[in-house]
Amino acid sequence: MHTIANTLQQNQDALIRIATNETHLSADRLQTEFNRTLFQWRSYADHCLSGYWLNACIDCPTAQGKDIRKTMIPLGPVAVFGASNFPFAYSTAGGDSASALAAGCTVIIKGHPAHPLTSSACADFIRQAIREQGIAEDIFIHLHGESFEVGEALVKHPNVKSVAFTGSLEGGRQLFNWAAARPTPIPVFAEMGSLNPIFILPEIQDSSIEHLASNVYDSILSSMGQFCTKPGLIIGIDSPTFTSFTSALSKLFSKSSASPLLHVGILNNYNKNLKKVVSSKLVNTLASSQLPIPDNSGIPLLASISAEAFIHAPELQQEVFGPFSLVILCKNNDEMKNIAEALGGQLTATLIGTNEEIKENEELYQLLSSIAGRVIINGIPTGVDVCLSMQHGGPYPASTDSRFTAVGGDAIKRFVRPVCFQNVPDDLLPAALKNENPLGIYRMINNQLTKDPIHTT
Amino acid sequence: MHTIANTLQQNQDALIRIATNETHLSADRLQTEFNRTLFQWRSYADHCLSGYWLNACIDCPTAQGKDIRKTMIPLGPVAVFGASNFPFAYSTAGGDSASALAAGCTVIIKGHPAHPLTSSACADFIRQAIREQGIAEDIFIHLHGESFEVGEALVKHPNVKSVAFTGSLEGGRQLFNWAAARPTPIPVFAEMGSLNPIFILPEIQDSSIEHLASNVYDSILSSMGQFCTKPGLIIGIDSPTFTSFTSALSKLFSKSSASPLLHVGILNNYNKNLKKVVSSKLVNTLASSQLPIPDNSGIPLLASISAEAFIHAPELQQEVFGPFSLVILCKNNDEMKNIAEALGGQLTATLIGTNEEIKENEELYQLLSSIAGRVIINGIPTGVDVCLSMQHGGPYPASTDSRFTAVGGDAIKRFVRPVCFQNVPDDLLPAALKNENPLGIYRMINNQLTKDPIHTT
Repeated sequence: MHTIANTLQQNQDALIRIATNETHLSADRLQTEFNRTLFQWRSYADHCLSGYWLNACIDCPTAQGKDIRKTMIPLGPVAVFGASNFPFAYSTAGGDSASALAAGCTVIIKGHPAHPLTSSACADFIRQAIREQGIAEDIFIHLHGESFEVGEALVKHPNVKSVAFTGSLEGGRQLFNWAAARPTPIPVFAEMGSLNPIFILPEIQDSSIEHLASNVYDSILSSMGQFCTKPGLIIGIDSPTFTSFTSALSKLFSKSSASPLLHVGILNNYNKNLKKVVSSKLVNTLASSQLPIPDNSGIPLLASISAEAFIHAPELQQEVFGPFSLVILCKNNDEMKNIAEALGGQLTATLIGTNEEIKENEELYQLLSSIAGRVIINGIPTGVDVCLSMQHGGPYPASTDSRFTAVGGDAIKRFVRPVCFQNVPDDLLPAALKNENPLGIYRMINNQLTKDPIHTT
Repeated sequence: MHTIANTLQQNQDALIRIATNETHLSADRLQTEFNRTLFQWRSYADHCLSGYWLNACIDCPTAQGKDIRKTMIPLGPVAVFGASNFPFAYSTAGGDSASALAAGCTVIIKGHPAHPLTSSACADFIRQAIREQGIAEDIFIHLHGESFEVGEALVKHPNVKSVAFTGSLEGGRQLFNWAAARPTPIPVFAEMGSLNPIFILPEIQDSSIEHLASNVYDSILSSMGQFCTKPGLIIGIDSPTFTSFTSALSKLFSKSSASPLLHVGILNNYNKNLKKVVSSKLVNTLASSQLPIPDNSGIPLLASISAEAFIHAPELQQEVFGPFSLVILCKNNDEMKNIAEALGGQLTATLIGTNEEIKENEELYQLLSSIAGRVIINGIPTGVDVCLSMQHGGPYPASTDSRFTAVGGDAIKRFVRPVCFQNVPDDLLPAALKNENPLGIYRMINNQLTKDPIHTT
């Protein structure tokens, strides 16, 4: 994995050039994403080596006098579906590929049709790096396919043992349905985006309103709203302070410019979804970007709705992927809680307020942890740190399996399963379980965590 | 959970009396199972307290200067389906209930219709113990239901967040299908039994043949073959030694007596499945129990088949729940490997041989780890130790999610999901993540495992 990172890094100029030509993302944005991609390969390699995800566990002797040891083994080949919005970090050279390889699984990646050349180039360099290590390069197989049939054939192939996907609810659910209907069902980890609500409690200081509005605006507009953690809902109590906040936010939207979205499919979806929202009689448009609208561009737009109307309009509770956010006006704290209860699973939920206010609204805070994979206090949801404590996933429809994460070292855990070895001679045990502890990892021995070797008599 | 164990223990005479009247299990067998049940409640309570399953993990500050912490929270209400074959240890008072409560989840248990009175009595004592602790007893809800509709309604109820089941492939798959087709799919952990093959390598010492046959016989016949780890396949190379072994085993079967099975439904299934096997032209009956056959009794029976015939007969590759086992005669080691490759997922796979032989057959050994949840060398598969290193589960059709176990402290992990807390003030963090480490658990802080508190500035 370090060799893969090094090979990608050595070829970064070529790769970023291909991606710049193929997507509407700027070279700066792509460079940032590329650096993240390299960091993922390297940090997942380090997590892999640390062995914590192996959950090595030894009971010897058990109450029945046996020698029982358990560790993780790879699930088997993983079908990975690259994302449209991150041509590097969540596509062919992305986190799913890196964590599946870290788990010891073969990867069969279907590149996203929005950036086929970037995908092919990444795959070529990854296969080259694997070959240089003297490993069969077919542990990493790259496919193209614009049609659903390719995805369907992959998910249904008997040798495929799990699926990783980043994309839309519709796409992820389809893969999940195919996998569940197989004669031998397989696990699917689909990360399918989210509304990422931001709840703003009423006691905002006047002096911080501008700053907050600017932060929230940046979070909505970063990468033209094409992050899966883009805040798509902003919930507050209708009051002079919240009105000041929404006015400040509206002002920023009015000054914004429309820019090209990633590709024409995303743009068409954005325009379709946006039209559905703004044509609803329940919704008021607060502000949108300045004219003219360049070709292929999505219009940044901010709208508002009352809490009561929102709760009864499930069609408005869907993610609008692009530079749009919806302000929900509540009459009181109870209505804020009603909104939290009405929302489905989320990748993130954010709560903004003074420390005292947040304590007074502990019930709302608890509700947010019950619906989200990540709860943020006084921050913004975009910017998913690649670290062990990250959880990028959440209750359905944020993901198809809330027990796992798509980002951070724990992403490896999606692709392994425990095997128990009973009275197996030391030389046949996996390294993680051998008496001498050759991997030097922490192991739970007779319910005590230790790096000690085992002395057998 | 300790109070529940104590309350059950105080009432053990009554409970075992009810179960003795209601099932065909002996009081001795039920007492052993009851002791195991108490041990499960107590050891899962201890595992729960140790907090290792919380995977508490803290990065502060992250590379981006944030404070990010992650721990597990309960998934929500678990629908538990009790097993027929263990009225205590895998039913209402069983391991699924104990591990779901340990995870912090409400339990809705559907008792198995084969022992409704035992189930009700267990539930009453559990609810009493919960009440005595000042906790709302409705965190443990008990239902009866002979019809599929009750199970279907449970699995499809929007408030149910996961399902645990022990039983047949048909039943487990049905629950899985319902759960996967929900508008919001939920995870199902169904443990659905297994063939539990025993592979016997050719160099058995003549002197150990009798002993081995007796061990294998005891494993097949314990509880009249009604353990999910009963060895249903015995694979060996057709040779004088293996013939001596099967003759010794046949002799034991001929001397055996038929005894009542757990209930009439299991008996009818056993007779139906047995008839299907012995009426096959591919199968030779080697031995069966002596006459007469008492009422409600299953006939212990041993049969054999050639490896080639077995591989091409998928109808013979199904579990026969009851006192039956099938000997597979191979021509050579390659045929043994072909059998291992032909088998679906297994709870267990056992390899018998001298140390040298096993090393020479490493490929076969590796194949066994690739299909099973537990690999046993020179032992028998029955007798599932309740310890952290146990894996009771396996690739489909042994279970619907090979990434989890139904037995041992790790069973708790089925019912939790990670939540990440970003910049959350200490007093709002779950105990596992507070600076002071009030639970005194190991936590991964900036990628280092430690019990140290965090000193913030």
